[in-house]
Amino acid sequence: MAYHPLDETTIADFIAQRPSMTKVFSDFEALSVSEVGDGNLNLVFIVQNDAAPAESVILKQALPYLRVAGDSWPLTRERMRYETQALLKHNELAPGLAPEVYDFDEAMSLAIMENLREHEIMRQGLVARKHYPHFADHISTFLVNSLFFTSDLYLTGPEKKLLAATFVNEQLRKLQEDFVYTNPYMESDENNWNPLVAAEVQAVRSDPALKMAIADMKLAYMTHAEALIHADLHTGSIMLNERDTRVIDPEFGFFGPIAYDVGAVLQNLILNYLSHYGHTPDSAERESYQSYLLDMVRDIWTQFARKFDETWHANNHGELVPDKYWEFPGGQQAFAAYRQHYIHRLLQDTAGHGGVKFLRRMMGIVNVWDLTSIEDLEKRAVAERLAIRIGRRWLMERKSVNSIDDLIGIVQEETADVSI
Amino acid sequence: MAYHPLDETTIADFIAQRPSMTKVFSDFEALSVSEVGDGNLNLVFIVQNDAAPAESVILKQALPYLRVAGDSWPLTRERMRYETQALLKHNELAPGLAPEVYDFDEAMSLAIMENLREHEIMRQGLVARKHYPHFADHISTFLVNSLFFTSDLYLTGPEKKLLAATFVNEQLRKLQEDFVYTNPYMESDENNWNPLVAAEVQAVRSDPALKMAIADMKLAYMTHAEALIHADLHTGSIMLNERDTRVIDPEFGFFGPIAYDVGAVLQNLILNYLSHYGHTPDSAERESYQSYLLDMVRDIWTQFARKFDETWHANNHGELVPDKYWEFPGGQQAFAAYRQHYIHRLLQDTAGHGGVKFLRRMMGIVNVWDLTSIEDLEKRAVAERLAIRIGRRWLMERKSVNSIDDLIGIVQEETADVSI
Repeated sequence: MAYHPLDETTIADFIAQRPSMTKVFSDFEALSVSEVGDGNLNLVFIVQNDAAPAESVILKQALPYLRVAGDSWPLTRERMRYETQALLKHNELAPGLAPEVYDFDEAMSLAIMENLREHEIMRQGLVARKHYPHFADHISTFLVNSLFFTSDLYLTGPEKKLLAATFVNEQLRKLQEDFVYTNPYMESDENNWNPLVAAEVQAVRSDPALKMAIADMKLAYMTHAEALIHADLHTGSIMLNERDTRVIDPEFGFFGPIAYDVGAVLQNLILNYLSHYGHTPDSAERESYQSYLLDMVRDIWTQFARKFDETWHANNHGELVPDKYWEFPGGQQAFAAYRQHYIHRLLQDTAGHGGVKFLRRMMGIVNVWDLTSIEDLEKRAVAERLAIRIGRRWLMERKSVNSIDDLIGIVQEETADVSI
Repeated sequence: MAYHPLDETTIADFIAQRPSMTKVFSDFEALSVSEVGDGNLNLVFIVQNDAAPAESVILKQALPYLRVAGDSWPLTRERMRYETQALLKHNELAPGLAPEVYDFDEAMSLAIMENLREHEIMRQGLVARKHYPHFADHISTFLVNSLFFTSDLYLTGPEKKLLAATFVNEQLRKLQEDFVYTNPYMESDENNWNPLVAAEVQAVRSDPALKMAIADMKLAYMTHAEALIHADLHTGSIMLNERDTRVIDPEFGFFGPIAYDVGAVLQNLILNYLSHYGHTPDSAERESYQSYLLDMVRDIWTQFARKFDETWHANNHGELVPDKYWEFPGGQQAFAAYRQHYIHRLLQDTAGHGGVKFLRRMMGIVNVWDLTSIEDLEKRAVAERLAIRIGRRWLMERKSVNSIDDLIGIVQEETADVSI
């Protein structure tokens, strides 16, 4: 079928003709279709059997353009292939932690996947101060499985290069390169910020040492092909409830630095922490939830580091450092030390990429709803100034970071005397 | 034409039928063909018009296997495409510094290129203590042009990713990953070394800190996709004379760390320096040539660093740090400082990759002719022990290297009291 965008009038017929859909729908007589936005990249529809509402799917179709940034960005529809490929890989490596993919039509740039009816977007739950008792366990497993098993620690050299060659993704990579690492820190029409933090924004833009550090992290982002990263793993890309967690929307996926994904998760939780200076006026309630979030950050890193180490030790099938390489007296201790050395470097890179991502959210194209949903600009500025200070310190102090408590300590120091 | 290996009886006809060859040969009546080996990867023939001997070409055809390492390594014939692509890119970016490519037949895995009749392999010239007054200028230009103009400093993000996607080269990359960074430092059948340095080889193999450092450099080699590197730029891949320099055999080319190529050149010159403890018994003659080689190493780095900086400043068309990023008071000084910071990091990486390459040559599959051509094993061991010591120090001290004189200083310190 040649590419053409579907709409609410044509989707039910399309669904009824896909053989894969008989596994989801008991019949096609009472399908209802509703469009739900997902931003500027795609058409997204929910298709439901009104006679059996538990039977429903998400149909996602790429549009051949992206209208954002005040300009028209041409983007090939290939991104739906990247998203589907990444989802299938995530389902394979981290089963139960990504939505199931039922069908994919490459010519139509269209995928049909599980409708997560019982899940909510994490960003919204966090602003509502919800607790997610299994999240640290789930997300650390997702990170370890999706990253370790696509890295040179597990795949052979040729396997990894051939897999990476299916994720060129040069257009969406450029979006992140521009919008995370470059444009926010220079004149660019799409940038926007709270006018009350204009002085802090200008200070970032004109700080030579900070600009050089951001460039170093951009270089790593552009060139360090360590593993298949999600590359947009903020709390808006996580749907969950108290029992279950799913990572969605991996269309930016490519072979990049492992720490970029880890940094995205941790930094978004800290941004949410800061947002409660606006959202949660009761100080006891606020401090309690903020403390919960810092514990979550510590848990995620600690579990990530432990699982990464254990998974590597048990599955050292890649070619970076084969088991035979460590066959010498003391070799097993050396391998253990090397794993810790590698994970320590990941923590420092996490601080670097996470630090940049604090800054970009305060002054770039895409602000973060946790903060923009604070209506009082003064209160919002309290959180934003803190985000800029914390981001700068995570980035600039990254090479002396030795434990997750160093990163949490920066948050605690900068927020020790907040007056609102 | 379906793939079939050519031989001395079929080549003249093949040449006569290629339209491209009328530019080289005035007629095809008196073509003579002689096979010349290039190792284990390819068939290589010289085709000459005996009626006009200046008219000649090299015909190079890939075989579908590589017999080395005591085992049979399957290798696709794709490597001829990689070599040709890289040669064409080198001709475009560094004209006059690579052999010209006249013709390429992908189905036959065959390329026809300039026969460098007036050039010699550099390794042989260096053992014969020849001087090459333009080499530092030529090779530094080759390095800067081939590396800078294929990096994110010059290409846009998408241009660079799409170019990199044409150099997957997963099979030859694995060869270097195994034979440079892994197998020499563990039990592997193909390893060989001078029995007189067995103790030093075992010390390398069982040194935990050294093994971890080698693994870090391997990680960089496997994942840091900075630019189109030659990836085998030793002095056997350089043909030259007093006036002219050509870099040949780039079939290992892929997007890797810039410093790997720089390190290969410098480290091979130091290996040759050490070989003169065996080749040049007259101490005045030896010291004079060794001093010439150290000056050459200093010149190459100094010219590389200067040209890299100037080329970047004048051609900052890539997306790592666009000019607009530096538009703030003091921004031009910050950009200059960032270029120096980047080049300083390249020097440290050069020490790391170069250091590993010293070690692999002493204990891996491919020893270096400069040293293996020393018949007296005792004399050869003098040079080999020094190579291991220098390689270890370049690698382990890389993060405190501040100038090329630090690397040269290590050579001078380790060779201050050589007794032969």
